[in-house]
Amino acid sequence: MKTLNQDLTRIEGGGVATPAGFQAAGIVCGLKKSGKPDLAMVYSETPCNFAGMFTSNLFPAAPVQLCRDRVARCETVRAVVVNSGIANACTGSTGYQLAEETAAYVAGKLGIAQNDVLTGSTGRIGVQLPMDKIRKGIDMAAAALSADGSAAASEAIITTDTRPKRIAVSFDVNGKKVTVGGMTKGAGMIAPHMILAKPHATMLCYLTTDAVISNSDLAVFLEEAVCGSFNRITVDNDMSTNDTCLILANGVSGVKINADDSREAMLFRESISFITEYLATNMVMDGEGATKIVEIRVLNARNESDAKICCKAIADSMLCKTAWFGCDPNWGRVLAAAGYSGAQFDPEKVDLDYDDFPVVRGGMDAGTPEETLAEALRKESFVLKLDLGAGDAAYHMWTSDISYEYVKINADYHT
Amino acid sequence: MKTLNQDLTRIEGGGVATPAGFQAAGIVCGLKKSGKPDLAMVYSETPCNFAGMFTSNLFPAAPVQLCRDRVARCETVRAVVVNSGIANACTGSTGYQLAEETAAYVAGKLGIAQNDVLTGSTGRIGVQLPMDKIRKGIDMAAAALSADGSAAASEAIITTDTRPKRIAVSFDVNGKKVTVGGMTKGAGMIAPHMILAKPHATMLCYLTTDAVISNSDLAVFLEEAVCGSFNRITVDNDMSTNDTCLILANGVSGVKINADDSREAMLFRESISFITEYLATNMVMDGEGATKIVEIRVLNARNESDAKICCKAIADSMLCKTAWFGCDPNWGRVLAAAGYSGAQFDPEKVDLDYDDFPVVRGGMDAGTPEETLAEALRKESFVLKLDLGAGDAAYHMWTSDISYEYVKINADYHT
Repeated sequence: MKTLNQDLTRIEGGGVATPAGFQAAGIVCGLKKSGKPDLAMVYSETPCNFAGMFTSNLFPAAPVQLCRDRVARCETVRAVVVNSGIANACTGSTGYQLAEETAAYVAGKLGIAQNDVLTGSTGRIGVQLPMDKIRKGIDMAAAALSADGSAAASEAIITTDTRPKRIAVSFDVNGKKVTVGGMTKGAGMIAPHMILAKPHATMLCYLTTDAVISNSDLAVFLEEAVCGSFNRITVDNDMSTNDTCLILANGVSGVKINADDSREAMLFRESISFITEYLATNMVMDGEGATKIVEIRVLNARNESDAKICCKAIADSMLCKTAWFGCDPNWGRVLAAAGYSGAQFDPEKVDLDYDDFPVVRGGMDAGTPEETLAEALRKESFVLKLDLGAGDAAYHMWTSDISYEYVKINADYHT
Repeated sequence: MKTLNQDLTRIEGGGVATPAGFQAAGIVCGLKKSGKPDLAMVYSETPCNFAGMFTSNLFPAAPVQLCRDRVARCETVRAVVVNSGIANACTGSTGYQLAEETAAYVAGKLGIAQNDVLTGSTGRIGVQLPMDKIRKGIDMAAAALSADGSAAASEAIITTDTRPKRIAVSFDVNGKKVTVGGMTKGAGMIAPHMILAKPHATMLCYLTTDAVISNSDLAVFLEEAVCGSFNRITVDNDMSTNDTCLILANGVSGVKINADDSREAMLFRESISFITEYLATNMVMDGEGATKIVEIRVLNARNESDAKICCKAIADSMLCKTAWFGCDPNWGRVLAAAGYSGAQFDPEKVDLDYDDFPVVRGGMDAGTPEETLAEALRKESFVLKLDLGAGDAAYHMWTSDISYEYVKINADYHT
């Protein structure tokens, strides 16, 4: 995983409210039976340019439809409200109406326009939002908004996650500071494949910055970052109806950044790629029931498409994922997955390594003792490197193992 | 699932040795640590026409390569020898040589040609066959061959299966009896997609008949049957290196059957489609850790390709499979899977039923009480019917749930 570029500074405890001019809050509105925080709000003191990527599921949730509408019609936004516990998906026109009612209520509370509000939801599919609870929650969240609200907001958007995920970094441009912050949630139904002004998984990610960036350039930056991070992770290969990644730029820093080859653009790219990779890999590490994260690297494939399908077949293989949970070096399962992936290669040219240990050479056992390999698999993270010897294309992804706990969480989720 | 055609008779306790002129055996040769039977032999007193379908995995196991070679070069065969415990996959040229040595040893023992022998293996990948044990096992199996050997043979080919699977049926043609028998194994790494004289999963299936059928017509019958049965099941969406389905026809009944529209061809089709569907659905019911089998029916899709990808997305969804294990009606997961499958439809026209209970109407909750739906899911088998309202194409598949036991079996398989 990435190390921080030396020109960037990570801000301890930072998140979505760290960039200048942003505030956030997270409160309990009573949607979760557990009584944990379940409504988050992010607010900018000034109008924000924005861009979004969303699930490509044919059943986009109501808040996804609302966000798509804003991306298509609006120049700027000011606030995002997100509830956890109920997904507001498969809820028909009533669901969409309730998402707009939520936006309208936030707008009234904050003295902004309804179009200035984006909404987000995650949780149970097929249930309508209880508006009385939502309205009370919005009252509380609006009252709680503050520049210190990053932690509370990141707590309020999680569902089966065991911990919140947030981060902020900053860099200097001609003596002025630019800050980028972010938070994410998502532990199951994770196989995002988000596309611009369309989207994929219940993962939610909210990015904020005080840089001055146009909507079209934000979309360019966002797509680059998401394709290198969230679109490369999988927990269970189930794509959600609610996946959303939004970026808001309020321009308060006064630093203009274009999607070009300038130093500031490079630093901005480094910032959001670091942030999204950090959030995405943390999402995998906190995947439902996950005990480890595995970085799958496919090397020397015939072309990028082959590298990608081979990577994905291994990352999604139930037999590989259960073997990793059992710390079982069982490399036959990795080769079998590569073999059915659809990638073309000569089986006798295939090499496999776990971290720095040779596992397979020329399609056969490399002779490293099983106990040595099992040791590598006992770590919380390891790199699986598969060299197809068929060309020079490469691809990488992150995946988790599958444990008893995954089954428990998802067999019991509902009841 | 199919009911038996009234012109067919199921033979109690039948299997591969039930058709006239066939013998079988299953013995312990010491490949399995458990000490259970691990070598099966099927033998025909006269030469058999034959056809085979095999995994399409790029790492075909040595016995798969051997069978493909026989299909390409040979007119007839006489025997099949199958070991469980070791897959003889990813074993290079040595593995292939040992498969041929196995065939040669069987040939010597039975007084037939090496080309008359097909081999099969299932179990651990990447390990060479211990030929001393194999040879001793062949000695024992050859001595044990008998027309009563169906049960023993079906016991000796299983791995993580909890029970053997075999069946035989017969029908009359002008007063002469034609019999068809079969056995199968496979509980994990099950997502077959076998193609003629190529193949996919560690499922093994051996079919025998005493009808007189040409190799080319056997291939036609076999492909029809496999596409309607084994290629429609999934346990874990992992395709094996060893999947094999073979059919042997020794002609002893004297009844000639062509792949045409005659009554006998229709009865033969009914026989092998009944047998392969019986064996395939029993394989799913006995899937690793499975507690239930779910028949997924997608109706009124835009075209067959859409029906198929939608069916497969639901059948492979980890979130659906864990919900079924938990008897959780969570229909949002079913719709989400349909939504990301790639099939095109209008979400507002979608209906869903569990058995005869309406679950979703027009993309939203149909209002059937959850407890009623949970009741349907508590059965060992239920039908999930998804109507896309987008055309008139349909497809169906069988899948299992995913339980703690699945994780346990596959995390502990190796050690």
